[in-house]
Amino acid sequence: MTQTYRITLLPGDGIGPEIMAVAVEVLEVVAKQEGLNFEFTTALIGGAAIEATGEPLPAETLDACRQSDGVLLAAIGGYQWDNLPRHLRPETGLLGLRAGLGLFANLRPAAILPQLIDASTLKREVVEGVDIMVVRELTGGVYFGEPKGIFTTETGEKRGVNTMAYTESEIDRIAKVGFETAQKRTKKLCSVDKANVLEVSQLWRDRVTAMANDYPDVELTHMYVDNAAMQLVRAPKQFDTIVTSNLFGDILSDAAAMLTGSIGMLPSASLGATGLGVFEPVHGSAPDIAGQDKANPLAQVLSTAMLLRYGLHQPHAADRIESAVLKVLDLGYRTGDIMSADMTAVGCREMGRVLIEALAGS
Amino acid sequence: MTQTYRITLLPGDGIGPEIMAVAVEVLEVVAKQEGLNFEFTTALIGGAAIEATGEPLPAETLDACRQSDGVLLAAIGGYQWDNLPRHLRPETGLLGLRAGLGLFANLRPAAILPQLIDASTLKREVVEGVDIMVVRELTGGVYFGEPKGIFTTETGEKRGVNTMAYTESEIDRIAKVGFETAQKRTKKLCSVDKANVLEVSQLWRDRVTAMANDYPDVELTHMYVDNAAMQLVRAPKQFDTIVTSNLFGDILSDAAAMLTGSIGMLPSASLGATGLGVFEPVHGSAPDIAGQDKANPLAQVLSTAMLLRYGLHQPHAADRIESAVLKVLDLGYRTGDIMSADMTAVGCREMGRVLIEALAGS
Ligand SMILES: [Mg+2]
Ligand SMILES: [Mg+2]
Repeated sequence: MTQTYRITLLPGDGIGPEIMAVAVEVLEVVAKQEGLNFEFTTALIGGAAIEATGEPLPAETLDACRQSDGVLLAAIGGYQWDNLPRHLRPETGLLGLRAGLGLFANLRPAAILPQLIDASTLKREVVEGVDIMVVRELTGGVYFGEPKGIFTTETGEKRGVNTMAYTESEIDRIAKVGFETAQKRTKKLCSVDKANVLEVSQLWRDRVTAMANDYPDVELTHMYVDNAAMQLVRAPKQFDTIVTSNLFGDILSDAAAMLTGSIGMLPSASLGATGLGVFEPVHGSAPDIAGQDKANPLAQVLSTAMLLRYGLHQPHAADRIESAVLKVLDLGYRTGDIMSADMTAVGCREMGRVLIEALAGS
Repeated sequence: MTQTYRITLLPGDGIGPEIMAVAVEVLEVVAKQEGLNFEFTTALIGGAAIEATGEPLPAETLDACRQSDGVLLAAIGGYQWDNLPRHLRPETGLLGLRAGLGLFANLRPAAILPQLIDASTLKREVVEGVDIMVVRELTGGVYFGEPKGIFTTETGEKRGVNTMAYTESEIDRIAKVGFETAQKRTKKLCSVDKANVLEVSQLWRDRVTAMANDYPDVELTHMYVDNAAMQLVRAPKQFDTIVTSNLFGDILSDAAAMLTGSIGMLPSASLGATGLGVFEPVHGSAPDIAGQDKANPLAQVLSTAMLLRYGLHQPHAADRIESAVLKVLDLGYRTGDIMSADMTAVGCREMGRVLIEALAGS
């Protein structure tokens, strides 16, 4: 009997539809090879949803995601929606999706691919072999804490307020993902906080430290967020798994991503307690190159591999996709964002075609 | 008549006293050359103050600073004080000093010195010519916002809380420093926030945008903090002056500092409305090498130059010191943290000696 998975596709805005098309083609080829069956439902999110329905996350989209086995998201946002009220912005749709599905853990790999090491702005000896996984808390902290808003003080001036807060249970569940992720890797976990100044970080550090007793095989260290930003530049190989809060993870996962030289290559996974996850590239919607067949679809394709590995527990299918990506890079195919001398420049669709070829030969 | 300046010296902890000793020698030589007179008062802060008085910022220290024309601080903190209650930690003394003197603007230069460009982990072509000034808000934001603390929720679990808040007037005064700093440099100002998610950042962006009308000669751009962390790694030359909030500035100024390859070289200035400022190296107290004559005193010495330039308005004296630092680097003298092949390794005291020689020859 063929295993059937319901996958919700959220192409979103900008280059989203182009790269999603490549990812779906890849999934269909792998499905045949692995004897899997995918039922795809496409739904609206972000600016595309605003245009069609007036809101960035229509209820039908959230329902479709909830009824599926995995969600593949491309990218959201664009200049034309930047000046809308906050509750109508594309980003609000993404935050709502994460909250609505209870996705509290964001896994952000930042690994140097040997074929692309020269794309890094860092020296080869500094980044060779870098393989970092940032586990970012995704539904708490200052992006969600209440109270928030712009208030008027007693003296009549405006005061912008957000609340950086974590409860013990919020810290515990993300710390658990951190420890378990580290266990699957090199068993080194670095918890990043600002416990020397922030009370919320002190609670974070206390809880993570307490949980270390349950994972005696994991080597736990702590680092302040400003130092972590420095150490990622100074000596990134010291890190394996990093676990941190929402805002700090937003900043550090992006800094770690840039060590690789192209965020156009990086996937991510957002996971909840139920096993349902959203898989998406790290890069944005790149409205400046949308519709021009210039986008790099590889992060979207690698997100598909993460969907298979972490969401659907089909590691063999994930391996096939990751091998195909390495193969097209070995063959010298490059989109503009990762182009270098003596390589073959291709557009988004052509990259998809050679990927399918590479898959067929696997 | 000789101009007399009262300078409060805060050597602090770890390597602080060693590097402060070099800075004072340098100041005394420059004083003779420039016909200035310094009256030095040494006061306690940080762990040294905790040991002597039980608190990290004794009232006498704050009084001494208030009665002076400039404060030269070395470094604070050490492992032995990390587990004290928060109000007794060395860092609390530093935060109290900033608050007590009303120092709301932290200027953090991150410039590549040609003699040390190979110390950067980034490729030469990426960092050559990098010259960034981060203007960080220092007494507001999430490090100070109320309410803060660890509270118990209705369900009986602990909740750590800090408040990220800015009023219009707090934003305006730091934005003004940002625009005026940019005017003295290349007239490019990048304001960093997270306005796509945070209300406090939206107010920040609105106020900075409004103030741009008063500075038509300054080119203002806005960037999200996670993107700024990436762009510092990807293409740091795009930045000249950055203005940002307390936490974001803490992280970004450190990341920018590390682009240079050694934070052991970088000074900083913290300024208030009155003109009184605190000048200190960016690096910490390095307790692991304290008392071993291994510390690099150059950031402390360059902090002295910033004291002369921004605090005492003695640019000629500041120029002398900065020239002497470049000269000893040209002569090949290096402490361990900036050592490279074919250079002459020296300790902290010897670096001080060659600096005095270089000054004498100027
Ligand atoms: Mg981000
Ligand atoms: Mg810092």
